[in-house]
Amino acid sequence: MGFWGIEVKPGKPHPYHSDSVPGTLHVTQATLGLGSSTERSILQCSVGDKNSIFLCSLLPNKTESCSLNLEFDENDLVAFSVIGPRSIHLSGYFVADSGDYLR
Amino acid sequence: MGFWGIEVKPGKPHPYHSDSVPGTLHVTQATLGLGSSTERSILQCSVGDKNSIFLCSLLPNKTESCSLNLEFDENDLVAFSVIGPRSIHLSGYFVADSGDYLR
Amino acid sequence: MGFWGIEVKPGKPHPYHSDSVPGTLHVTQATLGLGSSTERSILQCSVGDKNSIFLCSLLPNKTESCSLNLEFDENDLVAFSVIGPRSIHLSGYFVADSGDYLR
Amino acid sequence: MGFWGIEVKPGKPHPYHSDSVPGTLHVTQATLGLGSSTERSILQCSVGDKNSIFLCSLLPNKTESCSLNLEFDENDLVAFSVIGPRSIHLSGYFVADSGDYLR
Amino acid sequence: MGFWGIEVKPGKPHPYHSDSVPGTLHVTQATLGLGSSTERSILQCSVGDKNSIFLCSLLPNKTESCSLNLEFDENDLVAFSVIGPRSIHLSGYFVADSGDYLR
Repeated sequence: MGFWGIEVKPGKPHPYHSDSVPGTLHVTQATLGLGSSTERSILQCSVGDKNSIFLCSLLPNKTESCSLNLEFDENDLVAFSVIGPRSIHLSGYFVADSGDYLR
Repeated sequence: MGFWGIEVKPGKPHPYHSDSVPGTLHVTQATLGLGSSTERSILQCSVGDKNSIFLCSLLPNKTESCSLNLEFDENDLVAFSVIGPRSIHLSGYFVADSGDYLR
Repeated sequence: MGFWGIEVKPGKPHPYHSDSVPGTLHVTQATLGLGSSTERSILQCSVGDKNSIFLCSLLPNKTESCSLNLEFDENDLVAFSVIGPRSIHLSGYFVADSGDYLR
Repeated sequence: MGFWGIEVKPGKPHPYHSDSVPGTLHVTQATLGLGSSTERSILQCSVGDKNSIFLCSLLPNKTESCSLNLEFDENDLVAFSVIGPRSIHLSGYFVADSGDYLR
Repeated sequence: MGFWGIEVKPGKPHPYHSDSVPGTLHVTQATLGLGSSTERSILQCSVGDKNSIFLCSLLPNKTESCSLNLEFDENDLVAFSVIGPRSIHLSGYFVADSGDYLR
């Protein structure tokens, strides 16, 4: 197990890499990055060439963080990206396939 | 396992298809789609000919995304639909019955 | 497993019925019903003749839906009711005792 | 298993009693009680003589309920209390150690 | 199992100590501490010398508490810190590796 976190910046899609370790990534939180813009920033997820799906919408000074509950494994070929002016921090934890989670 | 997401558009009920793969769909997040209307959009779920049940209510510029915790399997004959002017993106993940979830 | 949903109307307490199927009901979401009143509506749960406990408070145009995480089984003799002018939709899912949940 | 709920009133710390039944209490929701004050009410938890920890902060007319995810067993000697003018209702469910949860 | 809580104060990073007991720490809630400043306070988590990741952003008088879902074990070398004027209380529970969780 281990803490996991990335910062997804506007204009820079962030692919999910499982680093070759079999296991499950739990993405559980999204938080707006620093910045002065008061426009919303939307987190989206794309899979191959399908349409992107919005995961959350963060509003400066109103709703700046949001719980998520997503799980990915090493076969998921997804990318996170942001629509809007500010970055979005994603956090969660990774559980390797060693069975530690159900000790 | 795999990321799952759909966009439910106003006026177009979206049935849940399990694609013949036995397993459990976890629907965990709803987010308002793009648009200029400031009216609320409500996500609802219908089962057969029973009354529809509201799952969440999203308010532009106030609450644009919402956590959910719903599970469906291949025997669930449900449809998602939207009351209001804007689409709602649903996301989550699918766990097949191979037992991968409890490795 | 199966989707579960009810609409709890003001003045009409709604007992939980397990329909004789042994299993666990997961109640995971509450959403305000339609209406023009802007007063809050509170969902409460009563057990026998004990005092009722508030489960959530929904505010029109501010917070119209709310995540819950409650579990009930066939031995729970509870009733849901609403304090306030508008109905509250409850949703979730039922897991029968066949062991399907931990396939 | 069974529904669990208490009302924590200002000035009256509420110890957690497990009633001698081995098992796990899941506290999953906090909701503001009735009252006219518009001041915030904060739920806190104390363990022995350590400093109290805030669990949530409820704001009348803005955020009147809040999801929690806390677990306690019969060895936890904790007390809940409220800072502020209004009571806070806590709800959740109790799972006895009979193994029913993982049927 | 046991209740877990800390107060993270501005300017004082708080390392996670597992106290040598093998197990999993579940951090499930963040709540703003007392104070008069109305500026936001952001909770972040750092791992070694990597960039810090924001976990949540709390706004006085608007959003003063926030659900989290993070898990750490004794191999996680992380530290929590606050950007902003007010402390943030973290709470959750610890599950030791004795297997009590899946009794």
